[in-house]
Amino acid sequence: MTDSKPFLTTCLSPALLHLYDASNAVVVIIDVLRATSTIATALNNGAKYVIPVDSVAKCIELGKQINCITAGERDGKIAEGLAYGNSPFEYSRDFIEGKILVLTTTNGTKLLHMALDKGARYIVTGSFANLSATCDFLLSQNHNVILGCAAWKDKINIEDTLFAGAVINRVKNHFSINCDSSMIAETLYLEAKDDMYEFMKKQNASHYLRLSGYGLEKDIRYCLTPDIANILPFYENGILTRI
Amino acid sequence: MTDSKPFLTTCLSPALLHLYDASNAVVVIIDVLRATSTIATALNNGAKYVIPVDSVAKCIELGKQINCITAGERDGKIAEGLAYGNSPFEYSRDFIEGKILVLTTTNGTKLLHMALDKGARYIVTGSFANLSATCDFLLSQNHNVILGCAAWKDKINIEDTLFAGAVINRVKNHFSINCDSSMIAETLYLEAKDDMYEFMKKQNASHYLRLSGYGLEKDIRYCLTPDIANILPFYENGILTRI
Repeated sequence: MTDSKPFLTTCLSPALLHLYDASNAVVVIIDVLRATSTIATALNNGAKYVIPVDSVAKCIELGKQINCITAGERDGKIAEGLAYGNSPFEYSRDFIEGKILVLTTTNGTKLLHMALDKGARYIVTGSFANLSATCDFLLSQNHNVILGCAAWKDKINIEDTLFAGAVINRVKNHFSINCDSSMIAETLYLEAKDDMYEFMKKQNASHYLRLSGYGLEKDIRYCLTPDIANILPFYENGILTRI
Repeated sequence: MTDSKPFLTTCLSPALLHLYDASNAVVVIIDVLRATSTIATALNNGAKYVIPVDSVAKCIELGKQINCITAGERDGKIAEGLAYGNSPFEYSRDFIEGKILVLTTTNGTKLLHMALDKGARYIVTGSFANLSATCDFLLSQNHNVILGCAAWKDKINIEDTLFAGAVINRVKNHFSINCDSSMIAETLYLEAKDDMYEFMKKQNASHYLRLSGYGLEKDIRYCLTPDIANILPFYENGILTRI
């Protein structure tokens, strides 16, 4: 490592973001189950753009103002007043191409707004679905990076940590990393990578239990598959577009 | 797992403690490098009790009021106005037996006071030096447990996470654990346990770098050695005593 490399740090919960210097950094918002996986999928399948909102009420409100698909869930079901859910399987090309998706994603949107407030240079979203596109973008820039896990109501989760570890494993030689959370994330990923679904299941990961309880094992498997929707969602002026 | 088992959760940073219900729980304060290792060592070697304080100023103040050993460091050296440092090697039986130790430990004391404010039932301190005594105590109680990592200025660190993982690995069958941080900690521990010193070194753990930079590799090795001072420090009325 040389001092001239940009820094990479990992923030495992939004409640820890204040510890990191996001100003002028590239911040990757990570919400593997399922917001950022679904965002990558919708944009990969031709969605015009995605507007992330942090509440069902805002989603309903936007749905009245613009011609769009409103989506969001509560307790594993489509939220009252919205038309679609959070599953990536709902956003096939046939359905979403050319449309605007307004997606309710509480944890991810909160972190995104925090990164914005802290003066991030670029904000993108990452998931296994767009792992390579995320890494390629980080390597193409010469800026500090914060891998920001959206977590679940500020509690650290396994799948977002795993994704941070996967990114670190791929890009680490190009960054200066003096961050124990990054080392922990990479160790976890290396232990899990041969079968992340089985790892989540074996570890009783909280979101594995929650989603499989709703019969959504298929969603979990999809969201752990690398490069299945390999584009980069880029946030600017309130919307996520494909670059 | 049955519902009748008490819960065990892991809090990887004091900045996340508000997410957990500490009321009536046993909270284990973990500050492996080096506060809780040194506390176990001093009490194992016959110190009358240990008063943890969160600043050098308070340590100096107490030193004027009672007959005690005042200890604390800044940047790897004994802090100005104090007599001794934070190394467990300073607290041999010859030196510390029968004495009161006032120890400056910023991160650990902060977390301890937070646990107290949140209504913890019992507060104990844990480190590899007293791993078995810590686990035995948790197993002897039928209460919820929070493994509280002191971290470093709220940033998650590898060694405190490793210790949480070691405890979980030993006691998990007796608790209900639905906590991704606990699973991450145990995975890290299982990966590191055969040679934790080499693991810390290989991972460029932030405290490995900091302490080895001060020539304190010997302290790190000591603090990663299980059961080298196998007693249980118990906090009550502002002091830590051996039970």
